[in-house]
Amino acid sequence: MSVIERATREFARLPGIGQKTALRLVYHLLKSGSERSQDLARALVDLAERIHPCTRCGNFSEGELCEVCSNPRREPGTLCVVEEAFDVAAVERTGAFRGRYHVLGGRLSPLDGIGPDELNLAGLLARIRDEGEGRDEVIVATNASMEGEATAVLVESQLRPWVGRITRLARGIPMGSDLEYVDGTTLAQALSGRREMQ
Amino acid sequence: MSVIERATREFARLPGIGQKTALRLVYHLLKSGSERSQDLARALVDLAERIHPCTRCGNFSEGELCEVCSNPRREPGTLCVVEEAFDVAAVERTGAFRGRYHVLGGRLSPLDGIGPDELNLAGLLARIRDEGEGRDEVIVATNASMEGEATAVLVESQLRPWVGRITRLARGIPMGSDLEYVDGTTLAQALSGRREMQ
Repeated sequence: MSVIERATREFARLPGIGQKTALRLVYHLLKSGSERSQDLARALVDLAERIHPCTRCGNFSEGELCEVCSNPRREPGTLCVVEEAFDVAAVERTGAFRGRYHVLGGRLSPLDGIGPDELNLAGLLARIRDEGEGRDEVIVATNASMEGEATAVLVESQLRPWVGRITRLARGIPMGSDLEYVDGTTLAQALSGRREMQ
Repeated sequence: MSVIERATREFARLPGIGQKTALRLVYHLLKSGSERSQDLARALVDLAERIHPCTRCGNFSEGELCEVCSNPRREPGTLCVVEEAFDVAAVERTGAFRGRYHVLGGRLSPLDGIGPDELNLAGLLARIRDEGEGRDEVIVATNASMEGEATAVLVESQLRPWVGRITRLARGIPMGSDLEYVDGTTLAQALSGRREMQ
């Protein structure tokens, strides 16, 4: 296999990138000069070698603790439980959360062989019982899918004896959408979760 | 800038990949394990270090001569002149050409400051006059754009004293398209270039 074919194959293994796009990317890099390929290669090596799960919460981290866990201004009394490490970045981008995170590392999915034992629930319980984190509130921020809902129910049942307040993200109409195009389940959830206007 | 941000930025510099897609690719690699990032990185380093222009025709090559030029079964009497090295791959994929190539390295584009001197015409002439290549036929396979047409006219005028037969790719209706949606220029070219049915 030639160098060009191998680079094309590696690009095409990425999600959303087919053979044609992969070849276009390779040609683009060849045209841009070797420095561009080297820059991307170095960034990828760093990604492979320097990013590890935070030992406390499971978020992506360059050190032992991630940026959130090592920030003394983040409140340990509130925990946001997410499925995957990249969900942390999504919540962080809102700038609306000041607590810490816990990454489960997946969602309940019996068909894929993922049961409660495959999720990092023991670590979450240890943080709450032994370290006193999440005593004020645990926000269950799993995805709004069947598996995410089942996972949220499981997390809630496990934490109930230890946590006073367990909440989950509101379901409703996403910003900028027309009622006409919103699916029925979402609209029903938006109705039942309606809020007083002030 | 964090390792993740830098990898995201490098991906986002590729054509057709925005910030969101770049971040998705980075997360995908992080989830897939470090081996995948290392594989892609190695492929990119090889791309940067091992691919050079063929000293004869300008095609991408791992050796001094590219696969076409070093293949004794390719006929030196027929040359296919293309704008860019990746155009060689497009013609090769057809499996319908048995001659050699010559890469001009661009197309006439006065607005971008690319005139005749920026194209590798001297190399093409040397191959024909000194090496005896392309004596049978030169196929001018520039793009079907204004710049490509102008480049084809230039190449033809330069080669006319040395080459018996200079051809260019047929213009016409692409396979699988409806007449209804073909633009007028293409349809006119398809009409004027019509062929006898056998």
